[in-house]
Amino acid sequence: MGTLVLLRHGESVWNAEGLFTGWVDVDLSVAGEEEARKGGELLRDAGLRPSVVHTSVLKRAIRTANIALEAADLHWLPVRRSWRLNERHYGALQGKNKAQTREAYGEEQFMVWRRSFDTPPPRIADDDAYSQVGETRYADLPPELMPRTECLADVVQRMLPYWYDAIVPELAAGGTVLVAAHGNSLRALVKHLDSVDDETITGLNIPTGIPLVYELDENFTPRTKGGEYLDPQAAASAIEAVKSQGAR
Amino acid sequence: MGTLVLLRHGESVWNAEGLFTGWVDVDLSVAGEEEARKGGELLRDAGLRPSVVHTSVLKRAIRTANIALEAADLHWLPVRRSWRLNERHYGALQGKNKAQTREAYGEEQFMVWRRSFDTPPPRIADDDAYSQVGETRYADLPPELMPRTECLADVVQRMLPYWYDAIVPELAAGGTVLVAAHGNSLRALVKHLDSVDDETITGLNIPTGIPLVYELDENFTPRTKGGEYLDPQAAASAIEAVKSQGAR
Repeated sequence: MGTLVLLRHGESVWNAEGLFTGWVDVDLSVAGEEEARKGGELLRDAGLRPSVVHTSVLKRAIRTANIALEAADLHWLPVRRSWRLNERHYGALQGKNKAQTREAYGEEQFMVWRRSFDTPPPRIADDDAYSQVGETRYADLPPELMPRTECLADVVQRMLPYWYDAIVPELAAGGTVLVAAHGNSLRALVKHLDSVDDETITGLNIPTGIPLVYELDENFTPRTKGGEYLDPQAAASAIEAVKSQGAR
Repeated sequence: MGTLVLLRHGESVWNAEGLFTGWVDVDLSVAGEEEARKGGELLRDAGLRPSVVHTSVLKRAIRTANIALEAADLHWLPVRRSWRLNERHYGALQGKNKAQTREAYGEEQFMVWRRSFDTPPPRIADDDAYSQVGETRYADLPPELMPRTECLADVVQRMLPYWYDAIVPELAAGGTVLVAAHGNSLRALVKHLDSVDDETITGLNIPTGIPLVYELDENFTPRTKGGEYLDPQAAASAIEAVKSQGAR
């Protein structure tokens, strides 16, 4: 019942500078644009032709989709965007330097904020320069849905309705659906698809720029657990690199 | 009742080479990309914030929208695409050199094909290298709707259902709707909006890359006939340039 292709955006300007990003609308770096192009070439070379594309409302995912589709000569595909595919909201940490935060709060607290399943960072103040309250792109969002911080459990909860209501019907129609999104919104989706437990999921890293393909059965469950990367060797190296780097 | 913004794509690679394009999916030239960027800057500087964007399924219109939205920092807007906004299908002339066609068939026949309201060029053969029959992007199009050639009257007829069914409801909701499309699909829309007669419309030239803004009344009729260009001086010069060039 359909094919799901996940594409995590590549390096953003703030990734490169070591800042927490979350819902702040930071652009891709030149390296991130190149990752998107390679992702599109992998799609093209695999002969994968999505019937529809979904992105978050953040430009690093949107531009990743645009650049990948241009590389695959698939500009014309229908595209849908939703805040439900956004990166995890990083709360008061948004815009903060990662190394300085680690130093100020200590390794343990830092790792809880980065990798705990259900402990969110402190809430961001509405008048913080990096709050998204009041942005026109969220004008249709009822105030009670606008996050001020999120843990991964929150992302799972707000992402799943989009999976069920917007993506599954297209898979049920036999389509191939491309989702261009973020580390944590894709992690939330993979948690659901592969039934990954709360402990394991926070340590799972999806490499950037390498399409991850899931063939789904009639229950919209993966035929192969974990799916298959279009460039398995590059994906394995990227996962290994993150591990040997220690916590990221 | 809503604001309509029309944006005609700029120079394509084949415009620059003097070839008939129609439904052939030719990319923007570097000059065309620059026109799109300026169009986006005009939108941004005018504080115009569309609620939704419509494009054809041809990459020169899609990329114009993408580049303009990036220039206006509006990547996140919802976007819809339809073949009904495509350029006029140029029939057997697609891929042909304009100067050579003029020479081979004579000025009079050439001008009938270029500027008659209701005489289409000869039909393109389905096995012609520049036919679109069989392209996956038109897989959902019932065979009887797939054009082999079109006159402007045909474009009006196939464009209007999209105006009524996809664009008007969004205007009725008070939205600002951006349509990024082509010389002839926009001409067809302007013919409808401004009630331009069949003779006059074929001589009307919409400048490329300059947003044309229509404020609409409760009948979805322009409050100001002809709308207003965001850069009226540049628009006037462009229109003058086309006139003094003679038939284009």
